[in-house]
Amino acid sequence: MANTTKLLFGIHMHQPVDNFDWVIEHGVEVCYGPFFEVMSKYPEFRFSVHCSGWLMEQIEELHPKLYKQIKTLAKKGSIEFFSAGYYEPILSVIPSEDRVEQINMLNDAISSDLNQVPKGLWLTERVWESSLIPDLSDAGIKYTVMDDYHFQCAGFDEDILDGYYMSEEGGKEIGLFPISKKLRYAIPFLNVDSAIKAIKSFDRKENSAAIIFDDAEKFGMWPGTHEWVYEKGWLDTFVQAVLADETIDTMHYGEYFEQERTRGIAYLPNVSYYEMGEWSLRAEDTLKLEALKKEMGHERYEKEGVKFLKGGIWKNFLVKYEESNRIHKRTLELSKARKRVKKHTFDEALYKAQTNDALWHGVFGGLYLPNLRDNAYTYIIEAENVRYGKKSILVSDQNELDGHQKVKAVTAKHIFRFDGAHGGQLVEFDLRKACFNWQNTLTRRKEAYHQRLLNPEQEKEIVPAEEGIDTIHHASMEVDDTILDAIIYDWYLKNSFVDHISDANFNGDNFRYCNFHEFGDFSNQAFEVQLDKNKVTFSRDGGLYFPEKVPTRLEKIYTPSKKGFDFTIDLSTEAKGDFYYVLEHNFHFADYDTITVNGETLSDNKKIEQVCALEIYDGHLKQKINIELDQLCDIYYFQLKTLSQSEHGFDLSVQGISFAMKIPFSNALYMKGSLEVVNV
Amino acid sequence: MANTTKLLFGIHMHQPVDNFDWVIEHGVEVCYGPFFEVMSKYPEFRFSVHCSGWLMEQIEELHPKLYKQIKTLAKKGSIEFFSAGYYEPILSVIPSEDRVEQINMLNDAISSDLNQVPKGLWLTERVWESSLIPDLSDAGIKYTVMDDYHFQCAGFDEDILDGYYMSEEGGKEIGLFPISKKLRYAIPFLNVDSAIKAIKSFDRKENSAAIIFDDAEKFGMWPGTHEWVYEKGWLDTFVQAVLADETIDTMHYGEYFEQERTRGIAYLPNVSYYEMGEWSLRAEDTLKLEALKKEMGHERYEKEGVKFLKGGIWKNFLVKYEESNRIHKRTLELSKARKRVKKHTFDEALYKAQTNDALWHGVFGGLYLPNLRDNAYTYIIEAENVRYGKKSILVSDQNELDGHQKVKAVTAKHIFRFDGAHGGQLVEFDLRKACFNWQNTLTRRKEAYHQRLLNPEQEKEIVPAEEGIDTIHHASMEVDDTILDAIIYDWYLKNSFVDHISDANFNGDNFRYCNFHEFGDFSNQAFEVQLDKNKVTFSRDGGLYFPEKVPTRLEKIYTPSKKGFDFTIDLSTEAKGDFYYVLEHNFHFADYDTITVNGETLSDNKKIEQVCALEIYDGHLKQKINIELDQLCDIYYFQLKTLSQSEHGFDLSVQGISFAMKIPFSNALYMKGSLEVVNV
Repeated sequence: MANTTKLLFGIHMHQPVDNFDWVIEHGVEVCYGPFFEVMSKYPEFRFSVHCSGWLMEQIEELHPKLYKQIKTLAKKGSIEFFSAGYYEPILSVIPSEDRVEQINMLNDAISSDLNQVPKGLWLTERVWESSLIPDLSDAGIKYTVMDDYHFQCAGFDEDILDGYYMSEEGGKEIGLFPISKKLRYAIPFLNVDSAIKAIKSFDRKENSAAIIFDDAEKFGMWPGTHEWVYEKGWLDTFVQAVLADETIDTMHYGEYFEQERTRGIAYLPNVSYYEMGEWSLRAEDTLKLEALKKEMGHERYEKEGVKFLKGGIWKNFLVKYEESNRIHKRTLELSKARKRVKKHTFDEALYKAQTNDALWHGVFGGLYLPNLRDNAYTYIIEAENVRYGKKSILVSDQNELDGHQKVKAVTAKHIFRFDGAHGGQLVEFDLRKACFNWQNTLTRRKEAYHQRLLNPEQEKEIVPAEEGIDTIHHASMEVDDTILDAIIYDWYLKNSFVDHISDANFNGDNFRYCNFHEFGDFSNQAFEVQLDKNKVTFSRDGGLYFPEKVPTRLEKIYTPSKKGFDFTIDLSTEAKGDFYYVLEHNFHFADYDTITVNGETLSDNKKIEQVCALEIYDGHLKQKINIELDQLCDIYYFQLKTLSQSEHGFDLSVQGISFAMKIPFSNALYMKGSLEVVNV
Repeated sequence: MANTTKLLFGIHMHQPVDNFDWVIEHGVEVCYGPFFEVMSKYPEFRFSVHCSGWLMEQIEELHPKLYKQIKTLAKKGSIEFFSAGYYEPILSVIPSEDRVEQINMLNDAISSDLNQVPKGLWLTERVWESSLIPDLSDAGIKYTVMDDYHFQCAGFDEDILDGYYMSEEGGKEIGLFPISKKLRYAIPFLNVDSAIKAIKSFDRKENSAAIIFDDAEKFGMWPGTHEWVYEKGWLDTFVQAVLADETIDTMHYGEYFEQERTRGIAYLPNVSYYEMGEWSLRAEDTLKLEALKKEMGHERYEKEGVKFLKGGIWKNFLVKYEESNRIHKRTLELSKARKRVKKHTFDEALYKAQTNDALWHGVFGGLYLPNLRDNAYTYIIEAENVRYGKKSILVSDQNELDGHQKVKAVTAKHIFRFDGAHGGQLVEFDLRKACFNWQNTLTRRKEAYHQRLLNPEQEKEIVPAEEGIDTIHHASMEVDDTILDAIIYDWYLKNSFVDHISDANFNGDNFRYCNFHEFGDFSNQAFEVQLDKNKVTFSRDGGLYFPEKVPTRLEKIYTPSKKGFDFTIDLSTEAKGDFYYVLEHNFHFADYDTITVNGETLSDNKKIEQVCALEIYDGHLKQKINIELDQLCDIYYFQLKTLSQSEHGFDLSVQGISFAMKIPFSNALYMKGSLEVVNV
């Protein structure tokens, strides 16, 4: 007699906090709605659901029909709800207490609204770390789900990954369910017969489980899937086929965990899924790893390589992208302040700011999506507003892990942050009332997939297609010259008050292509910091290079004012000759269509000659940024665009506007100026 | 002008708790003694020392001259002392509180005896996990040392690993110094010129550091090193050369940490050094990984592969070796009991039992060394003695992570542990007074290096030798037939009360070679457990296989008695035919020369015909084990030997004596018996 396969089927529903309304609408229309519409017909199909807290709130508020279907299925015992951090943080990168709090928040919501006490945890982005175990245990979690890949990395063979394992940290325990990659690639992408066959391949022992827990968005939101899953009836057919098959039992994770014994003990490395390991590396390393994997060949990789050929860890995104690190360290600073502030509104804002999506980048836009970063800063600023109230102060903040002091100027209207690690530059420019950070730009970096655009013929090697539809990992691409022209890499961070020393050849073109001549070492090196009561001084004893270094000193003083800050720039060099000092700013806006620069509509690339001020009007926020100098300059600007991949192909995104204020000097330059924000 | 290289030079001195006196004597004579003899001549050479707590106690007590030299150097400011867990546990596998306690113990010893407050931590076996950070921080540790490999695994290039990085967990911070592999292989193995050259290759930036922190035992205890380092004068010459070189500054880690800025932020995976990753895998996987690495070629591996081709994690030793897991889970159980017991003697014993050496196996004997496992059990039993006093109880213990109940019978004289996961077998057999576990055997397993013995010609590929002497990693081997004949693998664990169903052909030879015919599924499968007030019943509804399964049931009842326990074995099968039930025991002793079996001196391999009792006399402990049956049996026994590698080559170690009691039956067998320990 054949064994019965226990099908543990789970879906994970998530949208980043405050994602665009139309994304949620669209998601409900093409994916979440039809999914539960189908499932409602088959209450005997037992499955598991994780829905991140904010998305569930949206569904409850705006989509009562869908919410009712979910509640009804829960009431009928069809659904087991999984917990996670309420706003879907990567648990391993937030402090222990925040982990427990955020999980308890979702636990509470599930138990009050859906009448279940969750025992299972959806492990966000499957970023595992054993330090989570005690916290999960404290939050009442008994088991979690991760990839079979995690186990393979620890030396487990795929053929024994058909049940759960137990792990511990300091004696606290947790059950670990390995999600089958085979099933992830089969459901819903292969035709129903093949998908059922994949499930039945777990017919190994009496209590073998076929384990899948995957993004709900694969059922309708990923390209092509809506038609396939609903219009062509994949889901209906699949559920019917599962229910009709006497050798498949749908089961909740919790039931299986209670009824069946563990397969044994496992300790797992702090990996996520394989692809995440690739993405977390710098582009050069991703390419090397991809090359090694390709060389090994698909079959051998799957058979042997998978255990040994590994990428990096998720946390390396914080090393790879300073913009991600900046958001992360800001939330860490807020976490530390939590106990002193003790306000619910603060905690709420902090937790929202911990949402993972803006912190990384793989096949989805992530960090490259300006709105996600904006949402993170909205809540960082909201928390800061609760924290500081009407206070105006000039302080060092606690983010000195990189060894350099950062200074935060909090005024009634603004928060400015200047960073000693990065050229004494302005790295955060918050409008407190609007909860918007004008400094939220993104530097143009090499990404591994750019290589594929530049050498498209290399891309022909495709995993053999089976019947069904493609998963997102094989998405194809079409490229035109506009796109290729956007592949430009910056060798310094796109902050503001960036100091360049260049020559007369500096112009709009080489500014945009980031290949102007730089003599100095002030734009991407550290500055010393001197914090006084009312001002902060950044200085660097650096050099100009010909290529021999010629001693050069630059001192920048920022003095916060009611409307912004005053600044002085004091530059002196022993080098002989005529140079140009270029003061660069990069500002980011919510709506570039509303921007005017020195009174004119925003262009793509422009030169403004011989002015003393840069005036940027943000029509969306109805505020103007005025940067005035005590001397004439030429201003060049261009729209800072990044080219990144997403589930739809490639995105060309405006991340900000880059401004260069060019001023001639020889030997020395002493300049005064001010930055003011004016209500218009 | 050339930059000055900061040489951060550290040594790590360690001997497992209660290692043989002669090992310590020998260590002091050939290594620790001469090392500090030389260093005493050059107090201006600043270096760092970690010495595990027990070893420092030994030196203080038994080697006052050496101890005084160390103190004098400390007083002169030559030495910076590093902390660690006092008894050198792998920090990541002990509970958070124990980590802090053990580190504080060594901190206290260093500050009271050597007048320093350590800020640095030697990371035992460099087993990193970010969950350590909050605990290290709580114990006052500011920085630790790990391999450059850890950083490379996270995507860092070797050429930027010349300073320290900062990491954090939940906002708590730690400095991480990457130990250079290049220097580890150069010092003291290459001639002094090359070693100095290796140091000076870190002459990169103004504040570049050449970082090495390595086993002191490489300076005299590793094969060939005493002659090389002292008799041929390597160390003297080296220290003089360093001091004479104006471009090298010796420096303490602490000084560097205070004076120099971090190189940046790093988050590291939970790896140890590369080799540890190989060793932690099952032999089959180690061989696959070795093959992949070899295929890649030395140069490409070093250049590219190192970041991506990785083994497993240290904790997998607990999955790979049940004997290691058993010790580990016993100490975890004790840790949990700590708060209730609240006695200093208990804590002390627990911490000693946490010493890492017995838990793993690489190039040193480790788990394969019976005395190290004995030492672990000495302290486990000592802690249990404090915990239970004169109590006699029969309880489930808390080690159920593998999903199966284990029962502990504590009597005035003994502790017996029976395990539902492993055939309801006896897995621990403690003499409380002697603090000795007779059940401390070791199962014979495939090790990757056996392959090299079986195919010696494959071993010719050797890393190009430079001038100097070999590191331990290239130790050669000589093999004879006795050794090859010892390569036997067990398919079940060598516990006691192991149930086999075999046939008339079962004999001493196939017992030893572990290739007798097994019909049953009782020797390596789980049993159900029923715990009553005075007895514990293990039962299994299993089968005999021809190869079709024929239902067969086996029930074993253990009833603790004053001198041991009584047992019954109730076996019934639907299979027709004449079978033999074989009850197997494996016992481990401290001194096999003192053992007699049924009154005769121990042989290597023997059959005792038609007796009702097995009588083993342990002359070392002056105790006798009597196992009496209510029927006649033939007894076969052999000395259970393992073949393992060590720093000296290969060790053939007696791990115990395997006894088989063979009894004919058909259809059913009901047998009573007793195990008693008798003072002689």
